[in-house]
Amino acid sequence: MQLVSLLVDTRPVLAFREGERYFDLSSSDPSLGTDVGMLLASGEDWKQRVASAVSSARELPGEGIRFRPLLPAPSKFLCLGLNDYKHAAEANLPVPEVPEVFMRVASSLIGHEEPMLRPPESHMLDYEVELAVVIGREGRRIPVDKALDYVAGYTVFNDGSIRDIQVRTNQWTLGKNFHGTGALGPALVTPDELPEGAKGLSMETYVGDERLQHGNTGDMVFDVAHTLALLSEAMVLVPGDVIAMGTPSGIGFARKPQRFLLPGETCRVVIEKIGTLQNTVIDETVSR
Amino acid sequence: MQLVSLLVDTRPVLAFREGERYFDLSSSDPSLGTDVGMLLASGEDWKQRVASAVSSARELPGEGIRFRPLLPAPSKFLCLGLNDYKHAAEANLPVPEVPEVFMRVASSLIGHEEPMLRPPESHMLDYEVELAVVIGREGRRIPVDKALDYVAGYTVFNDGSIRDIQVRTNQWTLGKNFHGTGALGPALVTPDELPEGAKGLSMETYVGDERLQHGNTGDMVFDVAHTLALLSEAMVLVPGDVIAMGTPSGIGFARKPQRFLLPGETCRVVIEKIGTLQNTVIDETVSR
Repeated sequence: MQLVSLLVDTRPVLAFREGERYFDLSSSDPSLGTDVGMLLASGEDWKQRVASAVSSARELPGEGIRFRPLLPAPSKFLCLGLNDYKHAAEANLPVPEVPEVFMRVASSLIGHEEPMLRPPESHMLDYEVELAVVIGREGRRIPVDKALDYVAGYTVFNDGSIRDIQVRTNQWTLGKNFHGTGALGPALVTPDELPEGAKGLSMETYVGDERLQHGNTGDMVFDVAHTLALLSEAMVLVPGDVIAMGTPSGIGFARKPQRFLLPGETCRVVIEKIGTLQNTVIDETVSR
Repeated sequence: MQLVSLLVDTRPVLAFREGERYFDLSSSDPSLGTDVGMLLASGEDWKQRVASAVSSARELPGEGIRFRPLLPAPSKFLCLGLNDYKHAAEANLPVPEVPEVFMRVASSLIGHEEPMLRPPESHMLDYEVELAVVIGREGRRIPVDKALDYVAGYTVFNDGSIRDIQVRTNQWTLGKNFHGTGALGPALVTPDELPEGAKGLSMETYVGDERLQHGNTGDMVFDVAHTLALLSEAMVLVPGDVIAMGTPSGIGFARKPQRFLLPGETCRVVIEKIGTLQNTVIDETVSR
């Protein structure tokens, strides 16, 4: 099952995706809410309720549809850093023994095909293709062997980073949270469509025909199940929380010469069986 | 003006505090919401609406009142690290040239007099008295000389930290986000009751008669105005966001011998003119 968070003209709509067709679940059953976050918060039986709403859902016209961040307001957005052997090597940093974890704020997120903003403070806007895990069930101290039961589905994340600002302090928060730099979507893909733990899927970043990253979800230092177990040791995970699993090698900052995203370029991040998320970079307009 | 977020029996109530008396604003004017976060999100004219609601507000009985985290669900909770010269020295870390910033999740927060939880994973539960700034007005790229206009008020934060888990990775997120370790409150104190930028106020931590920290809000490396300017370069600040300004020296981890909070101990963090926030430590009960 694939679900998306749309704007249809100005109306937020939770929709079911089948190929390139979209069906309006919010009108079919208002109790499902108007985005994937509201759906997951509405109760653990959401799959059954979606299944029954789909049968009577109206197809949306292709025109006038825009994507919102798949989860527009997650209560937590946790991100792993250096969770790939080759990426840790290119960053000249040791492979962590426990995951490096930072957070993103919801207001830094954009949807599929929304513009990605390059701020005036820095031109070092960098891409990062990542697998994002969306939580479907509340849990604390989740055992590793039960952890995948807490996953509602997976999506694609482009962890757009202002690289010089990220690394000028030890804590990466500021460079990872510029407004309009983190793309999430396009769709929530439920685990039944994917290998267990979403392992073994290729992950790629392209600008035009140029492939800038190529990794595999099977090459992570910490897999999804171990990560959920570890994070939930500290925090209660709740439906709609997002965990971004870290990027493979090939980031612009580590290339020789360095290569950052430029206004007018369209960055596509692709995970096999999960989707293609693309955003065109524009210079952020600043009025003072 | 002082405002608090209470539970009266099981009902959430926004209340006005006058000395030790509490007045029920939520019943007097339901549009104000039932906690300080909802109030600030309800519109920039909240002070006027509170002022008119106070006149008809009923006094709450002293019994059956409990404190919630002052902001139970801030959309952002940003924290500065190493923002005090003596604290950076005791941590054996350089004074940062730009602030070190990390985040807390709302579910890690507790209210005044709620139990502070020591988890089974570590006994290194440490205290940190901090000035917390609460945002009252939306802003991005806020100029330093206008920044204090964006402050709704100030409160006290005890940035309870699981110290060994905090420092086992470069990113401090996990050790700073254990469930039930961050105390926020008791009251929002509006800027008119305080020196400009809340500068020059003593900050102290006590367990019983033992004073463990003693600093001053005037000794910060980055003051409130410069911090808001810097954070809002990256992020849109919105009403109800919380910024914790970092702790002075004297943390348990840096003492010789080290000194962590023990079950049964009551930790009081005090900022002059803003308030006293106290919490008793208990061992977290874990059922598996």
